[in-house]
Amino acid sequence: MQRMVNNPDYAVEDMLKGFVKVHSDILVGTENPRVLKYKDAPVKGKVGIVTGGGSGHKPAFAGYIGRNMVDAVAVGEIFSSPTAKAFFDAFKEADSGAGIACLYGNYAGDNMNVKMAMKMAEMEDITVKTVVANDDVASAPKDQPEKRRGVAGEIFMWKVGGAKAALGGTLDEVIAVAQKAIDNTKSVGVGLAPCTIPSVGSPNFQIEPGTMEVGIGHHGEPGVKVMPLGTADEIAEIMTDIILPDQPFMSGDEVVVLVSGLGATPVMEQYIVYNRVEEILAEKGIKVHRSYVGNYFTSLEMMGVTLSILKLDEELKELVDMEVDTMGLKQFKY
Amino acid sequence: MQRMVNNPDYAVEDMLKGFVKVHSDILVGTENPRVLKYKDAPVKGKVGIVTGGGSGHKPAFAGYIGRNMVDAVAVGEIFSSPTAKAFFDAFKEADSGAGIACLYGNYAGDNMNVKMAMKMAEMEDITVKTVVANDDVASAPKDQPEKRRGVAGEIFMWKVGGAKAALGGTLDEVIAVAQKAIDNTKSVGVGLAPCTIPSVGSPNFQIEPGTMEVGIGHHGEPGVKVMPLGTADEIAEIMTDIILPDQPFMSGDEVVVLVSGLGATPVMEQYIVYNRVEEILAEKGIKVHRSYVGNYFTSLEMMGVTLSILKLDEELKELVDMEVDTMGLKQFKY
Repeated sequence: MQRMVNNPDYAVEDMLKGFVKVHSDILVGTENPRVLKYKDAPVKGKVGIVTGGGSGHKPAFAGYIGRNMVDAVAVGEIFSSPTAKAFFDAFKEADSGAGIACLYGNYAGDNMNVKMAMKMAEMEDITVKTVVANDDVASAPKDQPEKRRGVAGEIFMWKVGGAKAALGGTLDEVIAVAQKAIDNTKSVGVGLAPCTIPSVGSPNFQIEPGTMEVGIGHHGEPGVKVMPLGTADEIAEIMTDIILPDQPFMSGDEVVVLVSGLGATPVMEQYIVYNRVEEILAEKGIKVHRSYVGNYFTSLEMMGVTLSILKLDEELKELVDMEVDTMGLKQFKY
Repeated sequence: MQRMVNNPDYAVEDMLKGFVKVHSDILVGTENPRVLKYKDAPVKGKVGIVTGGGSGHKPAFAGYIGRNMVDAVAVGEIFSSPTAKAFFDAFKEADSGAGIACLYGNYAGDNMNVKMAMKMAEMEDITVKTVVANDDVASAPKDQPEKRRGVAGEIFMWKVGGAKAALGGTLDEVIAVAQKAIDNTKSVGVGLAPCTIPSVGSPNFQIEPGTMEVGIGHHGEPGVKVMPLGTADEIAEIMTDIILPDQPFMSGDEVVVLVSGLGATPVMEQYIVYNRVEEILAEKGIKVHRSYVGNYFTSLEMMGVTLSILKLDEELKELVDMEVDTMGLKQFKY
């Protein structure tokens, strides 16, 4: 395992120490070492945006803390949910009295811990509402959306929800638009090589060289099929074939496209995949309003990419275009 | 080779197509398919900032095109210099009559091709002056600076030179401050695993598992020693031990620190390394004014990091802090 850690059991602690040092212009630690918050949180009168999840997905989750995006994040062990206490403390750090929008991904541990944290919050009169991201098309059939996982499309949910809150939206308005963003987003991943959690020391799933796993999850959850390794164009075609009919995305739609590397796939190759994705969309009359390519939601040093597509309406477009300043996503508005 | 390409011989072409599509708000292609430029270049009255180099280092080099940074970039094959013609065309695209600052790294091919391009420019009355980055301390002894390679510290040279040009600096002023930036920057790399050029299909150098190569170059150039793989803290100590005496950096200095991943090392681990770097600097009375951690200058899917430290003065501080909007570096000024 060719990795740069100290005691692997303290990798998250060590990472957080460095992370807070580097991004002190944006975020700060809190009393709970597993909760980070926007330096100005709670922002008076503003709905607080909270998320959380396992570590190992940088920039997700703490990398999306910042102006016009997320206010507080609960940090878990690598690939494990944060505790209920961490979510609860994140709610408290982000709460200015206007309520909390907890926007997180559909995983058993996160569901359980957010639910418990909400009970704790209720006792302290903090209003918390949730949106549970389920953009991963490959993780369950379309008629079982409650079984679908959240993956890189969560970034759109945080972007849009965070922008709406910054514009003064009420809790119900923020929840409604974040829900719309995730309902309008479909994602799929393709894995080319597995990853190793440092404290484990070997991969806990395998991808045979010469093959790729279509529909793989962010933690190596099995996909829908194992295929011979395709070209970048073929990978783009396989992914759009899965995503486009599911929404469905149709001629005349305007979309945002995110190709995120899973960690070790060179960014160069992500642009090659993107190039074909945009061609396919153009052939179908679907217009790309904005696109992102890079390591936006990773899984340690896994190889592969996820593709996420968000269907826009005027409200979503305005919120997507809004200026944002986080570690993981910085965007100027001219 | 678990990689996402089409015809490996056209990987750079395919990547550029996707790159221009995604970043059309910042940059555009030109008549020469191996030259990209800032969308507003040439900027009237402004010194043009040009760089170039081999592909496979994303965000370098084209990822630093944009407002307050680089105006035009010559793009080479993977790990190969751009042609003289590409450098020359980049000069023409960036030239508004105020001259060109060509800020590039010290490699034989780049030196030769920039020199030839300057001769072509002379015939068209375009004034070009150069700064040749040589921040890699491990690549040659201190008394042979002309033999030292340029590595991730080049980002500081482009940042500072680009900011000075945007503020209306003359060509001589831009060159002077870019030279000062690179003279004040020292870098070193540590490699944990090699990378594979897709058209080659296997790594052209090796790093044995359980070892690391201290002082490795961006293309696998041999380092100063092969050691047993250390912890993140040990790696930070080894790198600072090499860099700090070389400048030297001393108590009371203010610095900018860049820890850049080489491609496949998780960003999480880069923060762990950074954490110890900042501790070491603090112990020595060196103050970190600003820091960057992430995949800023990569080598495909190589594993490892580079550490670059820039010693500031008031002029450099103002230029480093200036707002910037490129694919690879976005920075707000509040």
